[in-house]
Amino acid sequence: MSASLTILAVDGIGEITTGDDLAAIIADASSLEDGDVVVVTQKIVSKAEGMLEAVDADDPLSHKQIVERESVRVLRRRGDLIISETKHGFVCANAGIDLSNVARGYAALLPEDSDRSARRIRDGIKARVGVEVAVIISDTFGRTWRRGLTDVAIGCAGIGPILDLRGSTDTYGREMQVTEVAVVDELASAAELVMGKATGVPVAIVRGVPREWLRRGDVRSEIIRKPEEDLFR
Amino acid sequence: MSASLTILAVDGIGEITTGDDLAAIIADASSLEDGDVVVVTQKIVSKAEGMLEAVDADDPLSHKQIVERESVRVLRRRGDLIISETKHGFVCANAGIDLSNVARGYAALLPEDSDRSARRIRDGIKARVGVEVAVIISDTFGRTWRRGLTDVAIGCAGIGPILDLRGSTDTYGREMQVTEVAVVDELASAAELVMGKATGVPVAIVRGVPREWLRRGDVRSEIIRKPEEDLFR
Repeated sequence: MSASLTILAVDGIGEITTGDDLAAIIADASSLEDGDVVVVTQKIVSKAEGMLEAVDADDPLSHKQIVERESVRVLRRRGDLIISETKHGFVCANAGIDLSNVARGYAALLPEDSDRSARRIRDGIKARVGVEVAVIISDTFGRTWRRGLTDVAIGCAGIGPILDLRGSTDTYGREMQVTEVAVVDELASAAELVMGKATGVPVAIVRGVPREWLRRGDVRSEIIRKPEEDLFR
Repeated sequence: MSASLTILAVDGIGEITTGDDLAAIIADASSLEDGDVVVVTQKIVSKAEGMLEAVDADDPLSHKQIVERESVRVLRRRGDLIISETKHGFVCANAGIDLSNVARGYAALLPEDSDRSARRIRDGIKARVGVEVAVIISDTFGRTWRRGLTDVAIGCAGIGPILDLRGSTDTYGREMQVTEVAVVDELASAAELVMGKATGVPVAIVRGVPREWLRRGDVRSEIIRKPEEDLFR
């Protein structure tokens, strides 16, 4: 039997505001199954958690001041672009703070702890509909050396961020060289393909993920490269 | 109607050797449909194109010498790891040359021109079974600041590498900030999820991609960031 995955956009999530119960909203908008991976964009998590801050929409500096404040280390600056390390440990543009898909006059900050946000949504779905899912909180980051942006995981629950192939052998029976696959980032990218930045679909389901990938794990401890291991910071 | 995608592993490709007709082998192993995106791993493209070089499997230096030769600029070194820019313009570890899933005593180099390789496979499939597909050649790269590896596109044909959202507006009617999505990289990552590094499935099909994504385009001119635009080289 061939391996296959299905990626489904979840329609009808509607506008999210502070205090909304995302788990309930997602569970009611979709027919979830055990083992589904639910990918939720950071933007609606930040909105539900009230991670919004007033900005003067006519004053670019107002946005920039928040970016500076949310950055613990600035790696590069060019014009309005700041590549910095956030207090969460992410290295990204403008501290992950942006203004699109947020009401005019507000900026959405990253969740305080996206792994915790993912656990809450996972537990909430379990409580509401009795289904065991994995949850990934996704955000859109740029890359060094490659143009364009892709979605990556900033938080997860119920899935191992890294698939560790150490000890497994290739088709020639030799030890694998590629040993650690960042499956949560690949899943976030896969989900983005059905969301669409402009269409306002903030949740997608990936169905068919191997059960052995579903374990405890979080992005902060497994995906974020420690500064001392890092060659580009 | 909700957006959805299906990702299908293509079984039965078997061992690829120099001179094999990949288009024919892929077409015969799968039931392709117009608009499918066929993702092919670099390793079998390199094998079919004879991009193999003898290495002394017992002498790490032998591999390292090829890496040095294939690099036009070394960005970082740490132990055996070299992060360099290849002659194709990719910045990656060990010039994209590795030893897994290659016969002992050989290293697989990157294809000379992966966009051309993708066009050949696309044209060959059209000629053999009369189906119009897009083709992506994928490889596994690491990332700065994040642990683990993900698959990205090193070549493509029949699909636009970048989905440009400039001019489109968010759900609040405001101009999008995230304007350029690297869909070929997201598709390569999505395909990797069903391939598996150790299982030796070198081809996957992504079915259900929006028709408007299918256009002329190549990785070299659209995805590779020009050194003068680059903040980390």
